[in-house]
Amino acid sequence: VYSRTTFTLCYTAAMLNVVAVDLGGTNLRAAYFPDDDPRPHSQTKTPTKAYEGPEAVVARIVRSIEELAPADRRELRIGVGVPGPLDPVAGVVFETPNLPGWLNVPLKQLLQDHCQAAVVIGNDANVAALGEWRHGAARGANDVLYLTISTGIGGGVITGGRLLLGVKGLAGELGHMLVDPDGAVCGCGQRGHLEAEAAGPAIARKFRERLAAGESSELTNRLNASAEISAADVGRAAEAGDPLARSVIEDAAQIIGRQLASLVHAFNPQVIVVGGGVSTLGPLLFEPMERALRNGIMHPAYLTDLKIVPAALGDDAGLIGAMVLAREI
Amino acid sequence: VYSRTTFTLCYTAAMLNVVAVDLGGTNLRAAYFPDDDPRPHSQTKTPTKAYEGPEAVVARIVRSIEELAPADRRELRIGVGVPGPLDPVAGVVFETPNLPGWLNVPLKQLLQDHCQAAVVIGNDANVAALGEWRHGAARGANDVLYLTISTGIGGGVITGGRLLLGVKGLAGELGHMLVDPDGAVCGCGQRGHLEAEAAGPAIARKFRERLAAGESSELTNRLNASAEISAADVGRAAEAGDPLARSVIEDAAQIIGRQLASLVHAFNPQVIVVGGGVSTLGPLLFEPMERALRNGIMHPAYLTDLKIVPAALGDDAGLIGAMVLAREI
Repeated sequence: VYSRTTFTLCYTAAMLNVVAVDLGGTNLRAAYFPDDDPRPHSQTKTPTKAYEGPEAVVARIVRSIEELAPADRRELRIGVGVPGPLDPVAGVVFETPNLPGWLNVPLKQLLQDHCQAAVVIGNDANVAALGEWRHGAARGANDVLYLTISTGIGGGVITGGRLLLGVKGLAGELGHMLVDPDGAVCGCGQRGHLEAEAAGPAIARKFRERLAAGESSELTNRLNASAEISAADVGRAAEAGDPLARSVIEDAAQIIGRQLASLVHAFNPQVIVVGGGVSTLGPLLFEPMERALRNGIMHPAYLTDLKIVPAALGDDAGLIGAMVLAREI
Repeated sequence: VYSRTTFTLCYTAAMLNVVAVDLGGTNLRAAYFPDDDPRPHSQTKTPTKAYEGPEAVVARIVRSIEELAPADRRELRIGVGVPGPLDPVAGVVFETPNLPGWLNVPLKQLLQDHCQAAVVIGNDANVAALGEWRHGAARGANDVLYLTISTGIGGGVITGGRLLLGVKGLAGELGHMLVDPDGAVCGCGQRGHLEAEAAGPAIARKFRERLAAGESSELTNRLNASAEISAADVGRAAEAGDPLARSVIEDAAQIIGRQLASLVHAFNPQVIVVGGGVSTLGPLLFEPMERALRNGIMHPAYLTDLKIVPAALGDDAGLIGAMVLAREI
């Protein structure tokens, strides 16, 4: 009685053509993935020009899609990754820190009206998590934590083989979990979140604070003392062996590792994928991070099969994830 | 092609008889739920006598089941809630702080061998979450956070209409998330977990610390100064209006509320259910907890439809949840 027909019903999404869009604060990327192919057949990259406001940016997204989409829209879906809190079910972007003027923009409806195809939108970090899960560093796992550490810290969670969405699709904001009630102000306006204590800007800030407090670094010999020192500067100094830079990065790695231990108790993942610009520091970040994680675990059973791996898709995670989003959600 | 037969296949769990067991450190409760009835038709309660070790306790569980189970075992399932980390898939209890000597006990296999029926075991807080979700305070919601605050803090998460298990069934340990790296030692051996900072023993400890630091309380006039002051004592004093007791409970509520805000960002639940002995303090706990939660949220969209409610099933959550576990997992 378990019929073949029923089995096929689960796979109605097969052989879809997808235009995937990765909307960033700086660049707008789009790619065309025909016939279930996970590799893009053509792609474009244009400046977002976010300062022109939502209407101009939406028009630019529509142009990118039209450039790539086939004339026949029947088997087409469009997947879009967008920074900031949004409701993927209603298709509304509540607001996004990197795109000025965006407030409750009904992006899904706007794109559907212009492009005559089904549109799925998703939080950019959630979307990247989908990409790493299906085609990147977490392939084959059913329970995955994804963290991207750059200017901010974004997250995405796969649990039991499904993207964790929550009631309004706002789940997975792992960068906005409290690590220090007396900590620095976060991009979101709250205080002491993981993002405010361990993302790139926090690394740069803590380096400058320790310099100001009298510690010394070779980095300051090369840079003008009054110059803004960025997280990338600190990273390069750490790679060159500068002890202060290494210590600052170790501290950030420890904060992240401790928070990951808490998240392991909450989610019991099989794979933790860490991406984003800060993750390119490699062992300088991963070693102290993994040490803090392992030291913070309450029972060894959580660690038996746990893998902590760098992201595999680099800058393409958003595009590939938007393709997965369009095909599977 | 969508056949009626196929639809029925999804409901093979219908009309099951269930013996549910709630294994606690003090008492062992069992109940019989025949024919899909969510109300128990008969139940028993016996002392666990945990000090006699795992073999004696397992024999006692078997006797409780045999007392209640029908002669015909074909439609029978047994659901068991157990404290402490366990693998519900393998059916092995790794260890449990309240049951001395339990180390990697293959409870599922042991009970199946003795009782000739399918056995499902689950972490007690996960199981209580199932109970509150299906028959208690979170009925009808698909995304639920459950927290039980008593001697420890346990958790359970429903996400997208499913119990969050993680790769080994160890997920949902929400009491073991870090809130203060320099905090007190937790029951699990780590430091500064939510449980170590806000469960009953933490409330009692912080009250005693503030007394020792010179603060005064009416409570000390009634109790011998050298007597151990329990969380229940602090609770009663707070209910009677004692300012120090109220302040200590408010502090714990704030710690819990802040952590809940972080968890709301991670899970985006529709309902948060708070149970356990400490939750019976009612508004003394819930008001400052909910205030801290709301103040800690990064975007109002998380709060639009969020309900924070007390548990509805009281001491029966474990038994009813074990019944749900047996029927639905």
